[in-house]
Amino acid sequence: MKPNETILKTAYVQAQKAFKEDEVPVGAVIYNSNTGEIISTAYNETEKTKNPLAHAEILAIQKACETLNTKRLNGYSLFVTLEPCVMCAGAISLARLDAVYFGAFDPKTGAVLQGAEVFKHTQTHHKPIVLGGLNADENGKILTDFFKAKRK
Amino acid sequence: MKPNETILKTAYVQAQKAFKEDEVPVGAVIYNSNTGEIISTAYNETEKTKNPLAHAEILAIQKACETLNTKRLNGYSLFVTLEPCVMCAGAISLARLDAVYFGAFDPKTGAVLQGAEVFKHTQTHHKPIVLGGLNADENGKILTDFFKAKRK
Repeated sequence: MKPNETILKTAYVQAQKAFKEDEVPVGAVIYNSNTGEIISTAYNETEKTKNPLAHAEILAIQKACETLNTKRLNGYSLFVTLEPCVMCAGAISLARLDAVYFGAFDPKTGAVLQGAEVFKHTQTHHKPIVLGGLNADENGKILTDFFKAKRK
Repeated sequence: MKPNETILKTAYVQAQKAFKEDEVPVGAVIYNSNTGEIISTAYNETEKTKNPLAHAEILAIQKACETLNTKRLNGYSLFVTLEPCVMCAGAISLARLDAVYFGAFDPKTGAVLQGAEVFKHTQTHHKPIVLGGLNADENGKILTDFFKAKRK
């Protein structure tokens, strides 16, 4: 199922938390594809943890795998407020998520519908359902606001 | 600098450790690009940790960032026994490693010189030096042996 309002709102709140902590404001939620039950939430933590790989999607996947005690997330979907980068798109495939829904399109570092187009290659074995542009304005604005404030 | 014999051997030993622990035998080493000093080593741990993202490269990058207390690995290079997948190639770019050297080519899931060709896109901002095929026979054989044993 497409992410419902609760899932969209939860991811946005995660992005807001990131903003408050001076992290690039991106939030992610993993939920049961049938029931919509939320299994994990996360936001970017690259600054705080000094880990360049601590993107919202990576943290959400790792939390979900830990909670469910599995390395395969078939039956679950991910919503993230920004189009995933190449690392995260690869991680989504490796985790075998059913679907990836995202908010704002990311022409700068996106790798789902542009750039590396990760899910288009035969070397990417598991190809999730992809749908972008959900609440794109709101999810994009928080990023624009963040970088605008940074440049001041 | 290209990985010296010590670095190549260290990565192979990491792959051997993975093999013994019933993990896909891939090993990685991060070292100072000028001195060759090894900063971190790792091998695949996806089975043990039930974390589909626990590839050798990811773990080596995270260890190096922790040790050096930084999220940017400029000045360091990575050697991995197998061509990185799309997630790991993305992570290498995000970590700003100077160079990625690898052993065996991976037509099945490789994303450096085939498939997504991660470092060829404008959305991949940091592009490391790339050189593949170092001790390719040895580094490939341990993988072939591993999967051959699995199929028995």
